[in-house]
Amino acid sequence: MELEKINTQEFEALIKERNVEKLRDTFETIPTIDLAEVANDFEDIKDLIFVFKVVKSEYTAEFFTDLSSDIQEKLIELFSDEDLVTLLNASFSDDIVDFMEDMPANLVSKILKSVNPTQRTNLNQLLNYKEDTAGSIMTTEFIELTMNLTVKEALIKIRETGRKAETIYTIFVRDNKRRFIGTIDLEEFIYANENELLEDLADKSAFTIGVNTDQEEVATLFKRYNLNAIAVLNEDERLIGIITIDDIVDVIEQEATEDISKMALVTPLEDSYKQTSIGRMALKTMPWLIVLMVLGAFSSMILSSFQDALASLAILSVFIPVLMDTGGNSGGQTVSLMIRGLAVGEFTPKDFWKILWKEFRVALLVSLIVSGFAFGWFILEMYVGIVHFAPEGLAGGALLIARLKVSAIVSLTLFATIVFSKTLAVAIPMFVKVLKKDPALISEPFITTIVDVLALLIYFFIASSLFQLV
Amino acid sequence: MELEKINTQEFEALIKERNVEKLRDTFETIPTIDLAEVANDFEDIKDLIFVFKVVKSEYTAEFFTDLSSDIQEKLIELFSDEDLVTLLNASFSDDIVDFMEDMPANLVSKILKSVNPTQRTNLNQLLNYKEDTAGSIMTTEFIELTMNLTVKEALIKIRETGRKAETIYTIFVRDNKRRFIGTIDLEEFIYANENELLEDLADKSAFTIGVNTDQEEVATLFKRYNLNAIAVLNEDERLIGIITIDDIVDVIEQEATEDISKMALVTPLEDSYKQTSIGRMALKTMPWLIVLMVLGAFSSMILSSFQDALASLAILSVFIPVLMDTGGNSGGQTVSLMIRGLAVGEFTPKDFWKILWKEFRVALLVSLIVSGFAFGWFILEMYVGIVHFAPEGLAGGALLIARLKVSAIVSLTLFATIVFSKTLAVAIPMFVKVLKKDPALISEPFITTIVDVLALLIYFFIASSLFQLV
Repeated sequence: MELEKINTQEFEALIKERNVEKLRDTFETIPTIDLAEVANDFEDIKDLIFVFKVVKSEYTAEFFTDLSSDIQEKLIELFSDEDLVTLLNASFSDDIVDFMEDMPANLVSKILKSVNPTQRTNLNQLLNYKEDTAGSIMTTEFIELTMNLTVKEALIKIRETGRKAETIYTIFVRDNKRRFIGTIDLEEFIYANENELLEDLADKSAFTIGVNTDQEEVATLFKRYNLNAIAVLNEDERLIGIITIDDIVDVIEQEATEDISKMALVTPLEDSYKQTSIGRMALKTMPWLIVLMVLGAFSSMILSSFQDALASLAILSVFIPVLMDTGGNSGGQTVSLMIRGLAVGEFTPKDFWKILWKEFRVALLVSLIVSGFAFGWFILEMYVGIVHFAPEGLAGGALLIARLKVSAIVSLTLFATIVFSKTLAVAIPMFVKVLKKDPALISEPFITTIVDVLALLIYFFIASSLFQLV
Repeated sequence: MELEKINTQEFEALIKERNVEKLRDTFETIPTIDLAEVANDFEDIKDLIFVFKVVKSEYTAEFFTDLSSDIQEKLIELFSDEDLVTLLNASFSDDIVDFMEDMPANLVSKILKSVNPTQRTNLNQLLNYKEDTAGSIMTTEFIELTMNLTVKEALIKIRETGRKAETIYTIFVRDNKRRFIGTIDLEEFIYANENELLEDLADKSAFTIGVNTDQEEVATLFKRYNLNAIAVLNEDERLIGIITIDDIVDVIEQEATEDISKMALVTPLEDSYKQTSIGRMALKTMPWLIVLMVLGAFSSMILSSFQDALASLAILSVFIPVLMDTGGNSGGQTVSLMIRGLAVGEFTPKDFWKILWKEFRVALLVSLIVSGFAFGWFILEMYVGIVHFAPEGLAGGALLIARLKVSAIVSLTLFATIVFSKTLAVAIPMFVKVLKKDPALISEPFITTIVDVLALLIYFFIASSLFQLV
């Protein structure tokens, strides 16, 4: 089935012509996200107001949430009170909270004035939940029925109120004291006898969470137990919100993006890349660069104290970048596997010794082969002249021995560096996890900075003591 | 609600005591994934066979898919034909294919012998779909009804066959020629009049895909349009499989893991980290280390050709690591944002110029501040003696000027390096995407290797020509 398409000009034309019928038809055939993407490029936002006046609010509510945040702001400013009330009545509370969060105070209060007192309390409460908690992503539009209803009575209620709920595929059941007792999948209503009581149908071992549960934990529950929706309870065991699988899909993606950002030394962006200003981007990236540059003082210090050695044997400095890079890369491999494994719950700090032992053996194998290869490769580099190393007075066998020695210094250092970096790369994220911090914060660049120092110390140690070259 | 728990000893004891009632009860109250996790540690796998004989197959089928792959293999080996038939009949085809994929040929043929001819053809077909395509993740257990049924008739069919389907929340509708025409959400059956025809209820603009569609594309459709299930059609527009949101949750997580692996120079693992052997881990990590080490020859070459300069002014080599690291880090920040943005579809190569221009301005701002800070910091390093630079014969004003010059060389190089690395980090992944390759393959380490070379060239260029220091 080919998807219907529309471009900005066509969409604008429909509105300018006041072609109500075609406009309604468009909203019925084209997904709102595709329409919103085109509408984001409108020259005159005022045109859009007309859409909200003539198209069914079940479509415009979704359309509105799909628009970019600056257009949402402008629209809220432009809306008449009536437009706004219609829109808000048709929207789910989690969506309203989503766009309110980014808005200036005057628009927030314009929105709060347009809703009824109950919804106002409700929104105020939702806005107060901390970011990345269950409370901040839950919605308050759900179907909750009392346990002494029969299936037949329940179906009547569902038909009456279902359209207003975020999902009717999970029905939430409460006892006579309004305490949550379990869930029923809509599926069960299809199979059940119409006189059965909800109390008997409800799955009483259904998972529940509190408002302050971290959204990543909630996502783990959904993935592990293949949930479709989960109940969010308050301290009195009353249902105050629900989270559905489509919210979780967003969470999973958002958490992966945040981890990738942190691993690359970028403080996670609040908005999309495109919506983040240049100054903000600089703020998100610069501090880490400076921190690591300052920490780089340790490697400068070591190199500085070996300046005489470097001056007398400049060939040593030739291999510094390749040493640093290979050490950083091998540690980066391991630290990324650790961070990801910890994030998706594949392992926990309890597995520390098992994983350290495994990675240590991987490191031995890898470093043995890499440094073995490197030994030959560096000799080749000197032999073909990629790297020039032919000290005066040396020729024939003596030159070959000098070159073998240099290559041995570098490749032995590589061997030790790879083993160290991979071992550290297991230990550090696990340690950070034990401290209840996010392991993604300490990633390849930090490992690199530490490994740089170690590699240089080993380098000069081997060069000076083992080979008396410096 | 507190989750029921059981440990390995308790679970084993239940089996050894042949406590059938308690065992059945356990499967009804504890999620199968929790039971499987405990069973993975069983000393004697044979004990588990009893579970499959006495517990309902709807539980054991799920339990089996949750076990680790080596235990699955051993069980298939141990199962009587009868046990195997029961298990396979209760399993969804996508789950069967999942565990068959990792099994040795003799077990695969044992499984294929235990299923009926239709299912055999079916499984053989599913096994043949290429990895990471819609075909490889779809299941063939769905409810497809003809369009001339009424809602009442349809509900009877759903009640009869629904338990065997992966989902009944999306019902698939075909015409009289068995061609797919659309989907109906179960929700609609609740609201509909029982005499309505499926033809009128079906959403004819429902998305469909082909078997060879990449799973990442499928995931994008689910996310963008909030789908619960999607129809997979063959060339004749017939429904041959469906993909549901829980499959997509796994895909999203798997794709993020793969991207993180690739970005860290690890060829994505087929199994979990714990299940991957040491030799295999080495194979997944070592080649990239060697490739980049070989590419490191370029920076060695440059350093080699400036050996005399380094010998006469060893202070220059002191700052090489901090230069390389900062260049790599700043490029790594940008390349990660690009790779992730391209992966989640936030931008496409079409946005190239817009993003390049934005990132160029970010780079200017960041590099101005970082190199400004660096200028002062490096002088401080020399002043307090972290870095020793006090050439003979220089003192007072002359020494200060020499230090200012060195610091200027390093920080000017930093400025240029950050700008270059961030610009390259936009261009390279975009270019890779245009070539239809995966941008995650060219990440921070590659950018670092290129930037190393550029940074060194700039370093020596500034040092030699601008300051005549070497």
